[in-house]
Amino acid sequence: MKQWISEVQSEDLELRFSVDSIVHSENSEFQNILIADTVEYGRMLLLDGAVMTTVKDEFVYHEMITHVPLNVHPMPKKVAVIGGGDGGVIREILKHESVLEAVLIEIDEGVVRASQKYLPEISCALSDERVTILFEDGIEYLKNTENEFDVIIIDSTDPIGPAEGLFSKEFYESVFRALTTDGVFAAQTESPFLNREFIKAVYASISSIFPIAGLYLASIPTYPSGLWSFAIGSKIYDVTRPHCRHTVDGIATKYYTQNLHEAAFVLPRFVEELTIKK
Amino acid sequence: MKQWISEVQSEDLELRFSVDSIVHSENSEFQNILIADTVEYGRMLLLDGAVMTTVKDEFVYHEMITHVPLNVHPMPKKVAVIGGGDGGVIREILKHESVLEAVLIEIDEGVVRASQKYLPEISCALSDERVTILFEDGIEYLKNTENEFDVIIIDSTDPIGPAEGLFSKEFYESVFRALTTDGVFAAQTESPFLNREFIKAVYASISSIFPIAGLYLASIPTYPSGLWSFAIGSKIYDVTRPHCRHTVDGIATKYYTQNLHEAAFVLPRFVEELTIKK
Repeated sequence: MKQWISEVQSEDLELRFSVDSIVHSENSEFQNILIADTVEYGRMLLLDGAVMTTVKDEFVYHEMITHVPLNVHPMPKKVAVIGGGDGGVIREILKHESVLEAVLIEIDEGVVRASQKYLPEISCALSDERVTILFEDGIEYLKNTENEFDVIIIDSTDPIGPAEGLFSKEFYESVFRALTTDGVFAAQTESPFLNREFIKAVYASISSIFPIAGLYLASIPTYPSGLWSFAIGSKIYDVTRPHCRHTVDGIATKYYTQNLHEAAFVLPRFVEELTIKK
Repeated sequence: MKQWISEVQSEDLELRFSVDSIVHSENSEFQNILIADTVEYGRMLLLDGAVMTTVKDEFVYHEMITHVPLNVHPMPKKVAVIGGGDGGVIREILKHESVLEAVLIEIDEGVVRASQKYLPEISCALSDERVTILFEDGIEYLKNTENEFDVIIIDSTDPIGPAEGLFSKEFYESVFRALTTDGVFAAQTESPFLNREFIKAVYASISSIFPIAGLYLASIPTYPSGLWSFAIGSKIYDVTRPHCRHTVDGIATKYYTQNLHEAAFVLPRFVEELTIKK
C-alpha cells in the first residue's frame, strides 16, 4: 500500500501526493513542521498541512518573489526577508552581486533548523557571511526600523494564523517606512482563482501607500489552483521591467528571464479586474 | 459524509473534488463520460476519469485555444475543430464575426449529447446555424481534406487512447494540407511541468512542418500542475501577436486580451528550453 499525504486546499478540494517516507515531523511553538519525500515533487515542506515548497517546483516561487523586486531596484545592497525560513529567497537574493547584507526575520526557529537539516538545496545560503538570521516577529521588527532596506520581501504563509498580520495596511505602512527612499517590496498574495476578494483588498492597501504598485503572476503546481500572485510596491521605480537587463542575464535561473519579468505583469482579464479602482 | 471524485493525475498525484451529485455517467463506444457537480469548480465533465472542463475555469482553456489562432489569422472564415465535443471552442469561435462556417469533427457522439443536455453554458453555440457537427474520426476526415480551412483547432483529450494519433507527425502533415495557403492551427499540448519530453517532440514535429511555430501557456487550475501548453503552427503569419487589435477588443473574454496574447508566448526559461533545437 502506498502512503499518501493530502493538502486540504479548501473544504472541497484536496491535492494528494504519494510519499516514499516522512522525513521529519515536529510541533514548534507556532505550527506543525512536516518534511516528506513525495514521489512526484521530491522532498516537500509543509507547515500546518499547507505545502510551502518542494524540491521540484520551488524554483518558481523563490525566483519570482526575489528577482522581480531585486531587478526593479538598480542597486540593492541591503535586503530583508520576513518569513522565508526555508532559505530559498535568501539563496536567490545572494545571486545579486550588489547585495552586501541580507537579514532574515523568521518567527519560527524550527523552520530554519529543519530546512538546514533536511532541505540543503534550498537552505544552502543561510550560512553565507552576508546573512543575518533573527528569530523574531517580523511585524515588531519592522515597526522599529526606518529607512534601512533597499528591498523587503514578505515570504509568508497563508493569511491565517501567525501570518495574518503580514497582510494588514498597518504592516505595509511599516514596510514603507523601513525602506530607503527608493525602496521596493514584494509579497506573496495567494491565488487569483481562489482568493479574489483577498487580493483585491491587499492590492488596494498597497496602492494607497506606495506611489507605484503592481501585481504579477507565476505558475506553481503545488500551490492551490497552480496560479499564484505577488504584489509589489515601489517608491520611485517602474516595477514592470528589470532596471538593468545586463545584470539580469548574468543570474542563473530556471523560470525568471528579463522578458518574463515584463510578461508576468500582463494579467488575464479576470485578474486585471482585481487591480482596478472602482 | 461528503462524496468525492479523484482525478488520478499520475500514479503519485491525485486532485480530489467534493461533489454535490453525479449528474450523468455512461460508457460510450469510446470512453466513460462522467458529469458531476463539484462544490469548488461547479459542474465538471470527465472523460475516462480525466477532467476535461468545469463551469468555473473552462473560460481559460476555451478562450486561449481559440482566440490565439483566430486572432493570428486576419480574416478566418472557415474553421474546423477536431474533438471539442463539449462545444466550448465552437462558442468562442462564433464570437468572431468573420467566421461563416465552423465544422466540429468529434469521434464520440456521446460527448456532444451529454454536453448539450447537461452543460448548456458551454455547449450553447452547437445549435448555431453556422455550425456543422460530424461524428467522425478527425484523423480520417483531415486525410481527405485539402486547402479548406483558415484555422484548425485540435481540442483533444490526453495523448493516450482515442486521441493518440492526434499528436503524430503524419497527422500534423494532414493538418497542414487541410489548411488554406495562409492557414493557422493550434492544439493543446499538455503540462510543461509533467510532460516535458512529449512537448519537446510535438513542438519539433510542428516546427518541421510549419514555417512558423510557437508554444504558449495558460493557467488552468483543474488540469495537472495548473499550467498548460498550446502549440501553434502558421503558414505565413507571425503567431505571437494578434493581427488586428481593433477586432480583438470587441470580443467579450475573461482571460484573453491583446496584451495577454503576446505575453502568453513569453516562456519561463524551463519551458523555453523545450522549443530550442539542439
